[in-house]
Amino acid sequence: MKIIVIGAAGTIGKAVVERLGQRHDIITAGRGSGQEQVAIEDYASVQALFARTGPVDGVVVAAGALHLGPFAEMTPEQFRIGLDSKLMGQVHVALAAQHALSDGGSITLTSGIDAYHAIRHGANAMAVNLGLEGFVAGAALDLKRGVRINLVAPTVLTESVPLYGHLFPGFESADGRRVALAYERSVDGPETGKVYRVY
Amino acid sequence: MKIIVIGAAGTIGKAVVERLGQRHDIITAGRGSGQEQVAIEDYASVQALFARTGPVDGVVVAAGALHLGPFAEMTPEQFRIGLDSKLMGQVHVALAAQHALSDGGSITLTSGIDAYHAIRHGANAMAVNLGLEGFVAGAALDLKRGVRINLVAPTVLTESVPLYGHLFPGFESADGRRVALAYERSVDGPETGKVYRVY
Ligand SMILES: NC(=O)c1ccc[n+]([C@@H]2O[C@H](COP(=O)([O-])OP(=O)(O)OC[C@H]3O[C@@H](n4cnc5c(N)ncnc54)[C@H](OP(=O)(O)O)[C@@H]3O)[C@@H](O)[C@H]2O)c1
Ligand SMILES: NC(=O)c1ccc[n+]([C@@H]2O[C@H](COP(=O)([O-])OP(=O)(O)OC[C@H]3O[C@@H](n4cnc5c(N)ncnc54)[C@H](OP(=O)(O)O)[C@@H]3O)[C@@H](O)[C@H]2O)c1
Repeated sequence: MKIIVIGAAGTIGKAVVERLGQRHDIITAGRGSGQEQVAIEDYASVQALFARTGPVDGVVVAAGALHLGPFAEMTPEQFRIGLDSKLMGQVHVALAAQHALSDGGSITLTSGIDAYHAIRHGANAMAVNLGLEGFVAGAALDLKRGVRINLVAPTVLTESVPLYGHLFPGFESADGRRVALAYERSVDGPETGKVYRVY
Repeated sequence: MKIIVIGAAGTIGKAVVERLGQRHDIITAGRGSGQEQVAIEDYASVQALFARTGPVDGVVVAAGALHLGPFAEMTPEQFRIGLDSKLMGQVHVALAAQHALSDGGSITLTSGIDAYHAIRHGANAMAVNLGLEGFVAGAALDLKRGVRINLVAPTVLTESVPLYGHLFPGFESADGRRVALAYERSVDGPETGKVYRVY
């Protein structure tokens, strides 16, 4: 199958490409890296990506920014970071992908453990990650031609502990190899509207 | 206590004003109706509302638009309706209210049953309503001075069945008097970070 991985050069994306690449043709995409460039915040850019690749059998998104910071000082502009990037960016991919995917093709989006397990200063992250769960549940019931959509909610990656570990005190990490399995289940399995929690 | 109700002229708002008005001083607000005018999508307008009212002990929001429609035809602009109005609008109120509320004051926002129980064409509604739950859970842990934040998730109101009942086939409705109790629990009770599900 032909699978686009957006964020393919990232910590999660690399592990997904390694796993899915064993059986599928991968098109790597990123903001500046990869075979194809795309900015998920920009719907025209997402549409242009699918126009360039032509029909595909799956798209994985492992990209999207959030804002973490104290609520007392949070500005609407900061809150917009997560809404515009990680939430609306992944919605853009789903909206465009539904028309580019083969029958039964899959859309796999990424949220995070903090959708369900609070982190400090996490109002934006938790809104975006739980919002993605609502989105996937709703979209799954509406997609045509057997097109599927699922969400992967990983804990902090072992590879990211040096960067983000302090934000997840006491959280058990999972390595990229284990997290990548959830993406494989979504792409190669039969399910839709599921959240694969990796933790 | 002095409580602002945004959306006071609405189906839910009217019931909330009737209930809370028995024991509290209510400031009614709406886009065009009520004692105070405010557009929750506009942060400056929300800040101006609190500047006019001065310190208050609680704010209730029973306002905010969503988009319902088939996913196959959904545009990013349509999806933005719910993000900008019901989600970001209520976030605006919380961001501004935290600085205007007395110690222990409360913020009460509104989501809906479709956060947990799917409705057709509900990708936007479910994203927004579940996103609000993540937001409230995260903000509650970060608010200072005992300021509290809760969410009310009502089923379709009995009073709204003529308008929206067809969107909720087989869903049991609840009348405004019953829904208003949840807002009272949030305003007058001790809890924070709670979702009061009325169904
Ligand atoms: N790492 C973790 O521990 C962890 C855990 C749970 C959830 N997550 C979530 O998983 C997602 C990916 O995290 P990560 O740590 O793997 O990220 P990362 O290492 O920073 O890599 C991000 C990747 O996404 C691409 N990208 C960034 N912004 C983009 C945009 N606007 N449009 C298109 N592509 C864009 C980047 O492209 P370039 O390389 O070209 O810049 C890069 O390939 C994030 O949403 C994060 O919240 C991460
Ligand atoms: N009714 C239901 O069955 C039900 C069930 C579950 C959840 N909800 C949710 O509860 C909320 C209120 O619903 P409702 O049926 O009570 O609404 P409604 O009857 O349509 O009343 C809406 C109220 O909000 C005000 N308003 C509208 N847009 C506003 C804005 N941008 N800024 C400030 N105020 C605004 C209106 O002011 P004006 O009167 O001046 O226009 C009006 O007072 C909505 O978010 C809805 O999704 C409703």
